[in-house]
Amino acid sequence: MEFLDVDTVDSAREKLLSSVISWMAVTEALPIGDAGGRILAEDIYARQDIPHFRRSTVDGYALQSANTAAAGESIPVLLTEKSKVEMGKPAQISLSSGECAEVPTGGMIPDGADAVVMVEYTEVYGSDGIAVYASVAVGENVVQIGEDARAGDLLLRKGRRILPQDIGALAAAGITAIKVIRPPRLTILSTGDELVPIQQDPAPGQIRDVNTFALAELARKSGFHVISAGVLPDDESALEGALRTAMKAGDIVIVSGGSSQGQKDITRELIDKVSSPGVYTHGIAIKPGKPTILGYDDASKTLLVGLPGHPVSAMMVFELLLGWLICEISACSPSPAVPARLARNVASSPGRLTCWPVSLEWTGSEYIADPIYGKSGLITTLTKAKGYFIVDRDTEGLSSGQIILVHLF
Amino acid sequence: MEFLDVDTVDSAREKLLSSVISWMAVTEALPIGDAGGRILAEDIYARQDIPHFRRSTVDGYALQSANTAAAGESIPVLLTEKSKVEMGKPAQISLSSGECAEVPTGGMIPDGADAVVMVEYTEVYGSDGIAVYASVAVGENVVQIGEDARAGDLLLRKGRRILPQDIGALAAAGITAIKVIRPPRLTILSTGDELVPIQQDPAPGQIRDVNTFALAELARKSGFHVISAGVLPDDESALEGALRTAMKAGDIVIVSGGSSQGQKDITRELIDKVSSPGVYTHGIAIKPGKPTILGYDDASKTLLVGLPGHPVSAMMVFELLLGWLICEISACSPSPAVPARLARNVASSPGRLTCWPVSLEWTGSEYIADPIYGKSGLITTLTKAKGYFIVDRDTEGLSSGQIILVHLF
Repeated sequence: MEFLDVDTVDSAREKLLSSVISWMAVTEALPIGDAGGRILAEDIYARQDIPHFRRSTVDGYALQSANTAAAGESIPVLLTEKSKVEMGKPAQISLSSGECAEVPTGGMIPDGADAVVMVEYTEVYGSDGIAVYASVAVGENVVQIGEDARAGDLLLRKGRRILPQDIGALAAAGITAIKVIRPPRLTILSTGDELVPIQQDPAPGQIRDVNTFALAELARKSGFHVISAGVLPDDESALEGALRTAMKAGDIVIVSGGSSQGQKDITRELIDKVSSPGVYTHGIAIKPGKPTILGYDDASKTLLVGLPGHPVSAMMVFELLLGWLICEISACSPSPAVPARLARNVASSPGRLTCWPVSLEWTGSEYIADPIYGKSGLITTLTKAKGYFIVDRDTEGLSSGQIILVHLF
Repeated sequence: MEFLDVDTVDSAREKLLSSVISWMAVTEALPIGDAGGRILAEDIYARQDIPHFRRSTVDGYALQSANTAAAGESIPVLLTEKSKVEMGKPAQISLSSGECAEVPTGGMIPDGADAVVMVEYTEVYGSDGIAVYASVAVGENVVQIGEDARAGDLLLRKGRRILPQDIGALAAAGITAIKVIRPPRLTILSTGDELVPIQQDPAPGQIRDVNTFALAELARKSGFHVISAGVLPDDESALEGALRTAMKAGDIVIVSGGSSQGQKDITRELIDKVSSPGVYTHGIAIKPGKPTILGYDDASKTLLVGLPGHPVSAMMVFELLLGWLICEISACSPSPAVPARLARNVASSPGRLTCWPVSLEWTGSEYIADPIYGKSGLITTLTKAKGYFIVDRDTEGLSSGQIILVHLF
């Protein structure tokens, strides 16, 4: 019996990161309108106070709040309307005690005023009189200068995945372009004599090529730029040629397939042949997905990854290594996982980290996570799952009723 | 005091849906490689069994499991190797008792065999003998015909947002193209005399245009196709012209702005003028976001939406109405919300549904959700939030310590 000398997920990640950290976090500048969903590569500070003048949050009358202290539903206070503030125009007056000025929602508060009373609590009285039927506190219905952000405030932190509201904040701050992470460029080579194109009916012994499609979409979703994805037969010289071409074209080459021992050895030997220093991880203590190969080429600055041929294994390993990597190089914070109660006991695999796909059901007070059993070759295991959870390699297994964290697909 | 005659969120949604249900769920066919993230518009069934032959999950020897009953670590069972199955080729032999055939991972199991023993538990013995040191059960290390999916099985349900593994399942089933929802086409008109382009320094009374950028990105993220987004002054004839143009170009026109009462009335009157039957909702019992207008034009089949000018209000209303709508017309299931413990009491707004932005912190055993207070004009309220929760209009407010469901941004 021969066992591979395998890495833990943590040590594989450490090696992975140290091989690429120096070059993979390449940035590019984008207009904010094109930056949605991208990862911010710089801290963003406000350059000016937002807003830079005092604004009303309601339609009403700007005034001195002290004047309204005695006002009530049946006993109004009478003020003199000195002016109307126009939308988008400076309020070029200053209010004294006893005076007020009409202000629209979003309009500028004149000097001298410290609050706004809503128009619903007022009544026009005579030619320039306003009867106020409610008292207002200092600052009521007013957005103060810098209340949204002060000049110098950190608006958005590096590593953030840009949300629609972030683009709004950038617009408000007058920031028209930002630096984001340029998606690492990746090629997928799916190998196997058994693989046929998806439009073809496979003969006995043959199957359709799943990994090219599934891995390409997972890579795109994770923030990579997929240069190309295609199928190759298990032919050493064809694979070597494709590897060398892909290493010139991009930052990462993924070889999926080669699930049998002999083929795995070929993938490993080829990666070692085309790269230097070459393979640094051959086998990771993870279930599913043990036969994973990591290598690096200094000259072309290419990361080379051999993934299992089984789609579920390939996708889980991709998620745990390359999904993790892109977050790590960009300092991005991962999406929150969903706490859920485990519906049944699950065994651990001693010495290996295990990824369990689960379904999720909301009971009205909590989520119930039910592990989905399936051999790792079954793609429907993942289409039935809402996400997955991780059983650490030092864990003895988990009991029904325990709370776990589900990472959503 | 004048109060608008407002709709509840539920009744506004009902009217919204009935005005567009007949036409908005337009579908288009896409190659599966381009369908990631799109909403599936048909149920997808497997046409054939997957896999369509019995496959090995390991490198090993196919055999009759009964032959191995007596095998153990120290007492092997000796079998005759009849053949080697090649990857991607049919297994053209049939095994009898006492015989075995070498099979690679993913290779076809020959007739007569009912299990595979891993190569690690075997030893070559002589020219065609295989010593087996472990007993295997019926079906062990074998994926059965149709174990992934049987012909006729529902693979993916209509309304699903296509995940990478779904594309994998479609590939495995030989389905090369699918029907997905065509993104409804939408124009955003941001109005306000106070708005200046984002690259410009606003004078006192002016602010930069936030909504064009924030709403466009939110719309894209929600699955709409943004035809154009731009700023207009508060000018009736300019707005009317822009409305008419946008109604010809797409399915939805959004007018954001007009936050003051006078401007709201103009937006409402204009929508009524350009459309028939016109406005059917003017005001929704929601906080923030009450001044929302919904209208419909039969002739051009256009939905017309007036949103509040405040970015936070505009975005929350967009999410609750149009985000909801796209899910509803496509029968899609919304993403799971995250259960969290509320960090403090929150008041309700009697008669109005309230959306509260929250931060989220993981304690190691649960999430703590802390409501973020901020006037609805402040865009940073949303950049500081991880998501939001909803306080129903019939709720008296929520207490610190209660479990709430947080919808993630």
